Amino acid sequence: MVKPQYELVESTLNYHGILVDVTTDQVNYPNGHTYTREKIHHCKGVCILALNPDHSFYVVNQYRHGVNQMVWELPAGKADHPDQTLLQAAKRELEEECGVIAKHWIDMGEFIPSGAYLSETIQCYLAYGLTQTHTHFDDDEFIEIDKWTMDDAITHIMDNTITDGKTIALILKVNQWLNQHTNQKVMKSK
Amino acid sequence: MVKPQYELVESTLNYHGILVDVTTDQVNYPNGHTYTREKIHHCKGVCILALNPDHSFYVVNQYRHGVNQMVWELPAGKADHPDQTLLQAAKRELEEECGVIAKHWIDMGEFIPSGAYLSETIQCYLAYGLTQTHTHFDDDEFIEIDKWTMDDAITHIMDNTITDGKTIALILKVNQWLNQHTNQKVMKSK
Repeated sequence: MVKPQYELVESTLNYHGILVDVTTDQVNYPNGHTYTREKIHHCKGVCILALNPDHSFYVVNQYRHGVNQMVWELPAGKADHPDQTLLQAAKRELEEECGVIAKHWIDMGEFIPSGAYLSETIQCYLAYGLTQTHTHFDDDEFIEIDKWTMDDAITHIMDNTITDGKTIALILKVNQWLNQHTNQKVMKSK
Repeated sequence: MVKPQYELVESTLNYHGILVDVTTDQVNYPNGHTYTREKIHHCKGVCILALNPDHSFYVVNQYRHGVNQMVWELPAGKADHPDQTLLQAAKRELEEECGVIAKHWIDMGEFIPSGAYLSETIQCYLAYGLTQTHTHFDDDEFIEIDKWTMDDAITHIMDNTITDGKTIALILKVNQWLNQHTNQKVMKSK
């Protein structure tokens, strides 16, 4: 099948910010017309579910200015170091936020937060075989760390008190993954 | 417990766009310091899983310029009519995109796409008791509609071919909801 073609024909930078750039783009559609699309450019991100042998995992609570509230999330962060892969960024974030390093890393896929107008994608990981090290917060990071069991997390996803998108998606994917992998000895061992 | 206080003390509008505004904000943190935060302002959205009696549901495929690719998603859209509630917006979107109206609507909670810097939140719904009507696409909307079974959807979430965040989160939440509601007669009946 020939895929429909959508072609960027012109892009104007309207705003160059701290975290984001905004362009107004002219895009050719398969019907031959050109439409205007506003696009927010933001670097990629990473998100990690770091699983203990008892299937509890690390979560963090912090103020999120975009939604003007305290938000419980899985550890996550920007992949904005040009010399780091996404996996290296995930390892750095997990150690910085939770003071943990992991022996095993499983790719849990990409998460698109708001694909209509936002370029950000978040690479998700399941990490296990954990060893405690030390947290390294940035000066302006004020983070409370906790551990949740899978059952508690699912309860709070279903009662709508966990609302962070990547956190809902990755917890429920890992729960599905654990249910599908009956040979869970690997997860029980460090 | 006294919640930590984060107070907006100054907000400067840097960009006024078609879909989004961007401000640079000064925010007082509980440690007494003031930090600069860039914030993208975007209207709220809605997302709907419209379930048939056989537990198949509607999905749509369209070009998403933010991530420059075709994306499979649950029906969704902006809640940008000032005289419409979120539920009314969801009913409108479902009929426009899928040509379907639903008798029953269940609140499936809020989804935060990228809370650190983006104001958008998406209200999620499970809709059932469906009746076919007519689609009403916007002039610049080119949407392919399909129906997926829950099993197929979960397979493609787990093999990482479904990557849209709200779609992953809402499908897995509804799957959990269906597993928890053993009296599914209500879902089997129109």
